[in-house]
Amino acid sequence: MTESFTPTERTRVVREPHRGAYDRETIYQILDEGFVCHVGFSPDGQPFVIPTLYARVADSIYFHGSAASRMLRGASAGLPVCVTVTLTDGLVLARSVFNHSINYRSVVALGKATLVEAPSEKMEALRAFTEKILPGRWDDARQPNEKELKATSILKLALTEVSAKIRSGPVQDDEEDYVLPVWAGIVPLHVQAEQPIRDERCDPAIPTPAYAANYKR
Amino acid sequence: MTESFTPTERTRVVREPHRGAYDRETIYQILDEGFVCHVGFSPDGQPFVIPTLYARVADSIYFHGSAASRMLRGASAGLPVCVTVTLTDGLVLARSVFNHSINYRSVVALGKATLVEAPSEKMEALRAFTEKILPGRWDDARQPNEKELKATSILKLALTEVSAKIRSGPVQDDEEDYVLPVWAGIVPLHVQAEQPIRDERCDPAIPTPAYAANYKR
Repeated sequence: MTESFTPTERTRVVREPHRGAYDRETIYQILDEGFVCHVGFSPDGQPFVIPTLYARVADSIYFHGSAASRMLRGASAGLPVCVTVTLTDGLVLARSVFNHSINYRSVVALGKATLVEAPSEKMEALRAFTEKILPGRWDDARQPNEKELKATSILKLALTEVSAKIRSGPVQDDEEDYVLPVWAGIVPLHVQAEQPIRDERCDPAIPTPAYAANYKR
Repeated sequence: MTESFTPTERTRVVREPHRGAYDRETIYQILDEGFVCHVGFSPDGQPFVIPTLYARVADSIYFHGSAASRMLRGASAGLPVCVTVTLTDGLVLARSVFNHSINYRSVVALGKATLVEAPSEKMEALRAFTEKILPGRWDDARQPNEKELKATSILKLALTEVSAKIRSGPVQDDEEDYVLPVWAGIVPLHVQAEQPIRDERCDPAIPTPAYAANYKR
């Protein structure tokens, strides 16, 4: 396994190239932290971008594909897609409006998605969706039966043409702006879980599992 | 102004149609709460999905368009895009894996984006980006000069073909699963701001503005 992806004409970060990252570790960390991706596909030249759950397993991404799967049936060669994952880490308040920014980490993966057919592979993908968000949940919940598995469309994208773009760290102002009497700094942001809300029909004797009570992203 | 968008073949929510919403108020609330959108465009049949900042102004969305703007130059008729905004409100832990879900609100807007040329309109768009996230910041910071305005690519998409998709509320399990001894409920999620981090070169005598100290989304 190579340590880095080779940037292509389509994945090389052109604007602000110092923000580009191509190493597998950085890219996989971003993919493993997020759980909602935005999938782009483009039948007849009109792009569609749909949010959906995903998980990385080894060197592929699996994602729920009800919308795209309609377009995939019969397209055994696969559907050209772009899967993008974005994590928002903070607001960057510079002294000038122009240098305001967002601290973020994003991954863009290009390629041809294929429909997962084998029930065992579908099962593994569903397991990965669940376990990446809530480790332990798969064994606690009722697992999918044959009918549910059939009703679930899962798409797979091999990770071959991938890049990350990252903005982190402090404000970068133009040198002449540092004298301005303007507050500057970072407002860090993160996804915060609140107290779990027990379902009305859930027996109060069933303890709240740790993955729900202490959910952290 | 009509109260609702007319769903088209391209924006009508087909899968789980009860989650579809087409009324302007619902759609604009989602657009106004988010600040990062995912823009899809598709030169030569390969879709790209890029995260970027946006703001709604009246019945249009403005978004930063450095990547797409390269494709737009010369395309006076506009570039077919899909702008998608997704807010993640919670994890839905059902008794069965199959009924696990996410509470979310998303908006999909289709149309042809055009490059904003007029400096005054660009200025208004930048103002909207800033003020929607940090009300008051525009007047505190140094506003864009002519050179910066020229260096900024802003795209505009009229909101004409738009729909929302929303999942909210409690777990929905299959009736026979309610007897299972599995904890079920919602883990609400929200974007949380941490304590602002003052820039090292920011004079400690400048007070932290309220929009940074008490940032809420």
